[in-house]
Amino acid sequence: MATIDREVTARVVLQQCLHAKLQVKPPDKDSEAEWAEIQRGMVIYLCFFKGSSKDVIPKIVNSVLNVRLSETDTGKRVSVIELPGDILIVPQATLGGKSKGRCMQYHSNADKELGMELYAQFISQCQQELESHPRWVEAGAVLCHGTYGNRQVLQLDTNGPYTHLLEF
Amino acid sequence: MATIDREVTARVVLQQCLHAKLQVKPPDKDSEAEWAEIQRGMVIYLCFFKGSSKDVIPKIVNSVLNVRLSETDTGKRVSVIELPGDILIVPQATLGGKSKGRCMQYHSNADKELGMELYAQFISQCQQELESHPRWVEAGAVLCHGTYGNRQVLQLDTNGPYTHLLEF
Repeated sequence: MATIDREVTARVVLQQCLHAKLQVKPPDKDSEAEWAEIQRGMVIYLCFFKGSSKDVIPKIVNSVLNVRLSETDTGKRVSVIELPGDILIVPQATLGGKSKGRCMQYHSNADKELGMELYAQFISQCQQELESHPRWVEAGAVLCHGTYGNRQVLQLDTNGPYTHLLEF
Repeated sequence: MATIDREVTARVVLQQCLHAKLQVKPPDKDSEAEWAEIQRGMVIYLCFFKGSSKDVIPKIVNSVLNVRLSETDTGKRVSVIELPGDILIVPQATLGGKSKGRCMQYHSNADKELGMELYAQFISQCQQELESHPRWVEAGAVLCHGTYGNRQVLQLDTNGPYTHLLEF
């Protein structure tokens, strides 16, 4: 049995993809929808809880980028930096939900202001870490991210999502 | 801060979809790959831990089918039965992973025999529960599932995945 006995300040779900496409700006009367698009790599769904702070960001960045959560063509487990793979970050407040009766409640989620700030810091620290790895940069891999608070209209094409959960 | 202080016997990640397609038989020299395909509804990623037993199945079935994890066209939160939506069940052993240094370890996962048995029971109890809801049946909604132990080659098209985590 898995035992979990600690406070959680952030929850991350990770899925591998061959291709993913996320709406970053919905269509309006003047313009079409805008999309962020990645090829082979990792989709990072991210949610911060109340009591979270910027101290947790380096731990999350380190784990998602350096833990061997990806697979090469020959089945070897490597990190997304080693792959080297694209990265798509998706803010996902629903991940903070807790069921009560038939309802989902989101009382533990960080409020919007804190959530937005931590989300922005997470993206910028990921970018920094990635840019310090010449092999990732020279492969032409990309980091994309969704817009906080938007509906995350997403298309995902996988060769096995290898869904992982990490909590911090 | 979200506090979690109990033992976990099963972990479920849920995503809403407009369309999803899962490989249920890989191609071989005699035949092409076989796919299970659903339209609007819910994808259920499922993992059992050591110490899990069939007693937990009714709780999981009740939660995933009856909690309001889906959204109607007008934004009302409803259960997948009320939607009524299709359901795709995906065995996902990676959900039991725990990071240790740069590796993911799966020591807490149920062994293969137990996992297969619980997975089969989960499918059959979902089917039973769904068939007791005339509105779901009459809408022509479908329940599909992946093959335990296979690579879960998956395509997903969402209008917002609304990724949720439930633990039992």
